[in-house]
Amino acid sequence: MIEDWLSMPCALPDADVLQAAGERQAQLTKPPGSLGQLETVALRLASLQGMAQPAVDRVWISVFAADHGVAEEGVSAFPQAVTGEMVRNFAGGGAAISVLARALGATLDLVHLGTVNDPGEIDGVQRAIIASSTANFCAGPAMEAGQLAAAMATGAARVRAAKAAGAQLFIGGEMGIGNTTAATALACALLHASPLELAGAGTGLDDAGVARKRAVVDRALARHAGAVEPLEQLRCLGGFEIAALAGAYLAAAQAGLPVLVDGFITSVAALAAARIQPGVRDWLLFGHRSQERGHAVVLATMNAEPLLDLGLRLGEASGAATAVPLLRLACALHNGMATFAQAGVSEA
Amino acid sequence: MIEDWLSMPCALPDADVLQAAGERQAQLTKPPGSLGQLETVALRLASLQGMAQPAVDRVWISVFAADHGVAEEGVSAFPQAVTGEMVRNFAGGGAAISVLARALGATLDLVHLGTVNDPGEIDGVQRAIIASSTANFCAGPAMEAGQLAAAMATGAARVRAAKAAGAQLFIGGEMGIGNTTAATALACALLHASPLELAGAGTGLDDAGVARKRAVVDRALARHAGAVEPLEQLRCLGGFEIAALAGAYLAAAQAGLPVLVDGFITSVAALAAARIQPGVRDWLLFGHRSQERGHAVVLATMNAEPLLDLGLRLGEASGAATAVPLLRLACALHNGMATFAQAGVSEA
Repeated sequence: MIEDWLSMPCALPDADVLQAAGERQAQLTKPPGSLGQLETVALRLASLQGMAQPAVDRVWISVFAADHGVAEEGVSAFPQAVTGEMVRNFAGGGAAISVLARALGATLDLVHLGTVNDPGEIDGVQRAIIASSTANFCAGPAMEAGQLAAAMATGAARVRAAKAAGAQLFIGGEMGIGNTTAATALACALLHASPLELAGAGTGLDDAGVARKRAVVDRALARHAGAVEPLEQLRCLGGFEIAALAGAYLAAAQAGLPVLVDGFITSVAALAAARIQPGVRDWLLFGHRSQERGHAVVLATMNAEPLLDLGLRLGEASGAATAVPLLRLACALHNGMATFAQAGVSEA
Repeated sequence: MIEDWLSMPCALPDADVLQAAGERQAQLTKPPGSLGQLETVALRLASLQGMAQPAVDRVWISVFAADHGVAEEGVSAFPQAVTGEMVRNFAGGGAAISVLARALGATLDLVHLGTVNDPGEIDGVQRAIIASSTANFCAGPAMEAGQLAAAMATGAARVRAAKAAGAQLFIGGEMGIGNTTAATALACALLHASPLELAGAGTGLDDAGVARKRAVVDRALARHAGAVEPLEQLRCLGGFEIAALAGAYLAAAQAGLPVLVDGFITSVAALAAARIQPGVRDWLLFGHRSQERGHAVVLATMNAEPLLDLGLRLGEASGAATAVPLLRLACALHNGMATFAQAGVSEA
């Protein structure tokens, strides 16, 4: 059953390594604190990897694609066919995340959970089809219990694959027309927030479109007001890819693999995972602050300080991927700088 | 004379290439605008390099080091000997910028303009000694006219070396104990601003130290109230490395070489250069928003939107270097993504 692995405890960051890394950091030839978040993120990576000299050379990016029943409510600026078309584009190398993964030398793992416009077998794409789409959650739960379990298990399996490949960092991404609506509904349920506060333009809705999206989320929240546990909220209001991401983040925390979270949708999945087990939060780094309206609220809830704020709103793991070089440089500085003693430089 | 080359016109960005690059950008498989600043910076690089497919593979970093007479007023948390010691550390590979340049595969060009604690001949360090330090600008002008001219010419010469080496991007950095005080004084003069607004903690002053620094800047501004032209303000209140940076930025704009500006001190040098010739501004990209108090004001004056905001306050070009991977990814995305037509993806 799904509960079996969900309740396995999360790993704990290494406090001794954190202290040792902090002591080293304090001796490097720079004013203390002058490398800002590059210092703090290096220390966090050290404590998560249990290594005084952290590294993010081997990065694993799983992008989960799935369609959403709620798309029939007209909540996206793009037609639903785009989800399946983009799966092909991911594999073909032409999508943003394809380009970024190539530039970073990262593994790009593509996971197809079900699309209305099924692109069929594609080299490099894992078929883990649950259904052609979730159900429209304005009318009933988005997923059956078995579908939720399958989606979460698929996410966890990709983390196991990442671990087996020696990944030092896990990144999850998503593609699914309509999924900012699902993420907004789920975030509203998890946070007892209003869609007025959280609903945004997604891939490019105008004001009327955002108003329609808010009304759809309002209807969904009323329909599923009885869902009060995070797993049940995820089942009723999530999506296959959102559930897969939540499962992946939980499995990563259990396996002690640091996660770099992407944008709004992945952050909502991370929030759901952290509601299932609070220990998940320790394993999450945040790549960027998305332009999508609700992201700032979700980040604040998790006391997250993302590395980047570039006005991105694409998804696909693109924001997290863009932040990877910052982690690499943070590690290079932490590991490679001379101490005051080594360099013969006077201290303050 | 110094004025000869300072008045040579700046190059102009290529409007035709900008338009062509924008047309390409609009066809890439993503919602329009969804890559935020990664899109705008790719377009700017295209227009500056005159290439529809911009590139920042070859990055040149010149770090200018010099001492400041005003250090005798007790305005730094570190002893003045550190400037010379850090020149050796830069060359030895142990400083932050040494590590970053290595990680980026960038050329690190070290330029020694004069330190009280002269480290002597060092492999990899250009000796372009003007004097062991500027004069204390509380008592008189920081530089004589010939010293200002020599410093600016040295900056320009490093840009010529960068161009000759095929650099696609120029980054300037600085090292000089006391130079946030000089930069603050110069910025106050250029902007008619108060040190209350601009003076910050530098490498780590406490509140009393910041108050002392403000008083020092107040005295300097009163002493040099007669300096109203930017070149004269630079001579009276700047430093050798600040003048070299201003000369480098001006020369880069004249040569049509894009610049990535680092933090507070380099931004003040950039502001001075842009006051000497407004056309300089077109050639400036901004790497990061420093934690140093005055940086936000100087950036706002130039309508600058830095790529990063990581709480850095180190100097040495470290913030600009940290932003280089973002420029590279922006170029990779712009050049490498498929169009909707190529990928067979439906549009909005």
